[in-house]
Amino acid sequence: MSDEQVAPPAFPTSLGTSTADEIRLLGQDLTADLMGKVGFGELAFWLVALRRPTPSETRVFEAVLVALADHGFTPTAIAARVTYLSAPDSLQGALAAGLLGGGSRFLGVTEDCGMFLHQALAGGEPPTDETGWDDLALELVEQSRANGTFIPGLGHPVHKVQDPRTPVLIDLVREEGLEGPHLKLFQAIGRVHEQVLGRKLPLNGAGVCGAALADLGLPVELLRGFALLARAAGLLGQLAEERRRPIGMDIYSTVDRNAVYVDPES
Amino acid sequence: MSDEQVAPPAFPTSLGTSTADEIRLLGQDLTADLMGKVGFGELAFWLVALRRPTPSETRVFEAVLVALADHGFTPTAIAARVTYLSAPDSLQGALAAGLLGGGSRFLGVTEDCGMFLHQALAGGEPPTDETGWDDLALELVEQSRANGTFIPGLGHPVHKVQDPRTPVLIDLVREEGLEGPHLKLFQAIGRVHEQVLGRKLPLNGAGVCGAALADLGLPVELLRGFALLARAAGLLGQLAEERRRPIGMDIYSTVDRNAVYVDPES
Amino acid sequence: MSDEQVAPPAFPTSLGTSTADEIRLLGQDLTADLMGKVGFGELAFWLVALRRPTPSETRVFEAVLVALADHGFTPTAIAARVTYLSAPDSLQGALAAGLLGGGSRFLGVTEDCGMFLHQALAGGEPPTDETGWDDLALELVEQSRANGTFIPGLGHPVHKVQDPRTPVLIDLVREEGLEGPHLKLFQAIGRVHEQVLGRKLPLNGAGVCGAALADLGLPVELLRGFALLARAAGLLGQLAEERRRPIGMDIYSTVDRNAVYVDPES
Amino acid sequence: MSDEQVAPPAFPTSLGTSTADEIRLLGQDLTADLMGKVGFGELAFWLVALRRPTPSETRVFEAVLVALADHGFTPTAIAARVTYLSAPDSLQGALAAGLLGGGSRFLGVTEDCGMFLHQALAGGEPPTDETGWDDLALELVEQSRANGTFIPGLGHPVHKVQDPRTPVLIDLVREEGLEGPHLKLFQAIGRVHEQVLGRKLPLNGAGVCGAALADLGLPVELLRGFALLARAAGLLGQLAEERRRPIGMDIYSTVDRNAVYVDPES
Repeated sequence: MSDEQVAPPAFPTSLGTSTADEIRLLGQDLTADLMGKVGFGELAFWLVALRRPTPSETRVFEAVLVALADHGFTPTAIAARVTYLSAPDSLQGALAAGLLGGGSRFLGVTEDCGMFLHQALAGGEPPTDETGWDDLALELVEQSRANGTFIPGLGHPVHKVQDPRTPVLIDLVREEGLEGPHLKLFQAIGRVHEQVLGRKLPLNGAGVCGAALADLGLPVELLRGFALLARAAGLLGQLAEERRRPIGMDIYSTVDRNAVYVDPES
Repeated sequence: MSDEQVAPPAFPTSLGTSTADEIRLLGQDLTADLMGKVGFGELAFWLVALRRPTPSETRVFEAVLVALADHGFTPTAIAARVTYLSAPDSLQGALAAGLLGGGSRFLGVTEDCGMFLHQALAGGEPPTDETGWDDLALELVEQSRANGTFIPGLGHPVHKVQDPRTPVLIDLVREEGLEGPHLKLFQAIGRVHEQVLGRKLPLNGAGVCGAALADLGLPVELLRGFALLARAAGLLGQLAEERRRPIGMDIYSTVDRNAVYVDPES
Repeated sequence: MSDEQVAPPAFPTSLGTSTADEIRLLGQDLTADLMGKVGFGELAFWLVALRRPTPSETRVFEAVLVALADHGFTPTAIAARVTYLSAPDSLQGALAAGLLGGGSRFLGVTEDCGMFLHQALAGGEPPTDETGWDDLALELVEQSRANGTFIPGLGHPVHKVQDPRTPVLIDLVREEGLEGPHLKLFQAIGRVHEQVLGRKLPLNGAGVCGAALADLGLPVELLRGFALLARAAGLLGQLAEERRRPIGMDIYSTVDRNAVYVDPES
Repeated sequence: MSDEQVAPPAFPTSLGTSTADEIRLLGQDLTADLMGKVGFGELAFWLVALRRPTPSETRVFEAVLVALADHGFTPTAIAARVTYLSAPDSLQGALAAGLLGGGSRFLGVTEDCGMFLHQALAGGEPPTDETGWDDLALELVEQSRANGTFIPGLGHPVHKVQDPRTPVLIDLVREEGLEGPHLKLFQAIGRVHEQVLGRKLPLNGAGVCGAALADLGLPVELLRGFALLARAAGLLGQLAEERRRPIGMDIYSTVDRNAVYVDPES
């Protein structure tokens, strides 16, 4: 604390600024250059990466967001809907409550997988042929087994044989010529792990999303953010549905009516 | 509480469901029908409205989201960034903290304006010519003045003459043939209010966004949700920037160093 | 935006400040005057009201917090627990998600009742005898019925005859000599409403809490805050229980397994 | 998804339940046994630990909460206040936004220190005299230095010589006869670290809080929760102050006016 007022430093930004006559965003004129000319998905990518994505990159990026937007009555959807029941005065509270579930367990695969692959590639030059990828993959799977850890993105609790999103997203990425090292490595893990683990696991579609986003050059420490952006759209849909055909009260009374007191001493 | 387990009712949804082999969303097969075929903005619209928007509707919808995504160092951006400084362990917490500022004061214009126009139109048949619209608008402006209330969306704290987003969005909406009663009424208010209020105010671009969303048939009680979705993208950009060139600590120390204790008795 | 750095104004506070050697809070030395000498409930009161409560006030205040802390598997508890399931990486996220349900519907009675009574008393001098209170109460009940509105705090969804908290809190307030106009008016409403409404409703204990807090001179616009503080303790208990004997996954799978797709066209 | 309704499991709880006539909490009758008889701090402890604290434990516990409640214009206070500025419609949103900053960086010391000490003690029997404690402490400090990690709770960014909270809390804990292994170990670290690190650092008061809470037998994975509970009270005070003498707008305009656009290419 000081009696003298201390002037703040400058607050630099490469995002949005405005004057009385103009609104600028990302070094562009919002109204002349962006509105109606740049899509929302494009802008979301641009706001993080500080470069405008190509049409191919946009297609892959938006396919990932579409894949991650809504997974039915997930914990995030439940939290959003019971919060909206309890506090209909604040749509932003219900949305925020839902997004707060976007953490390590139920929304973590995309980011964990992307970061895992990214770290594995950090060492040096990426392999140049399928054998090279398979060798690197084998190393990683063996390391994980030795450490007693799981490879993020390998396996799925429901889609035990194949996650339907996986082949579709891989095809799309290839169509757009954007198959990069993260996705190559992930597919290699898919090919070789059975030798080591003794069973065949599917590549989790959300993990493929992480690999694809990393291959687009998006910062891996922010991959969770894209899952959250996607989920924001899904949660708006859940909240719209809660207005139309509420289930919040039914969830609440289902839990409440089946509550049983347990003496902690017993 | 009951000793007998009470079976829950069914939990109906028109959004996402899945089985071991298939993921469905909005009655579609996510992987075959949506990924790579439907854009993220399209999907967001569809998730709320339960119908797929036309390309024209998508263009207007995404232009609105782009217009609302980032407005620089707003309270929402500040909250997100200082939260991320303080709790870098939780990106979802920082995003949620930012979105929690999306309430009545700083993000309310879109929804307030849309709802105001919607209520004004609720009475009966919409006017059929400009004079009709002007008459209805005049009535509303006079009512507001009599009530001592403001018309939401009329005026802007910074863009005192014209909000640059306004003419661009109106042109875009007309280009796409989607100018509807909410926007017509809002423009009429823009034409006539000077007679009543004695000064000429600009139509707030965020208000035009609300009118445009309402004309797309989106539920007016959820307009805030679209501003929040847009802002989620903007906040991801702010958080990416906080990682690259942080300002959170500077904001904190600017406030902290200029803190002055005040005795409440004085 | 400006090229010249603009010095900030001072940021005044009557709460916490610190130097290298000293930590001050509310004009006191935190370590010499507060720690071990002032209770947590006392401090919470003091932080809002800017005055230290008397022992009697503290007893009533803490009884209110105890009354509001946990109500079992409420929407707030459900939201907190499923969020913790989904994002165990962030305890603050789970707590925040739970508190976000502390809004108008499920935690609103305390504040709505307190504000209603406060507004009713705002007019002029409070009545001086029971007849005077009954007359004022009758007026309010009749007004409400004429407006088609409910009196906040009158009635309870479960405790149809008597809310067990009500007589206990009223007795406690009287014991401590702190029965003030808000509680007097609320009790009068309890006495007279049957004449007007044709049925006898209990005074909601959470409403009595609101009246008691208002009688302690706490700002009525912040009554929700005290319910939230109380609930924060309850939610910590719920989260501790979620760690010991989780139900989050069971809630999630109960909802998910009973999901039924509904075609919106039907 | 299934066409047959699946009955939920029971939802067990040792916290709150209620019937039409009775409200029970922690196996007690809320109104007969708790309200007016148990303090709020006591109840908060009880809700997590599932046992009622002794008066001595309550005194230490509440002293910790008082120590952690408010630290002036922290990032949490800033986030709460600018959120309240932006969304005055939701007090719970402003409080939640503030609490979301209660994460690893600015509120992490209490929990990190408690967990660090707890893990160090996990091995076997605690030492029985000061020499024993010093030896264990020396081992830990040397390990940390070898790993290149810091000991949580050792050092303070502002109180470079002594954190004023530290001696006061230690005295209080001893007065109440509650000095346990965590605090003994932490003090030993305070005695010996200079030999290893080459400089003398103060024991952070928030770290002492963590040690004290761990010695009370509270679960170390929830220590952050107690800091959050304490901070909830502090934030209510900040929000009350924001209503009385707002600074949110000044924070916002300070940042906004000192914003400078930076071309990312440069």
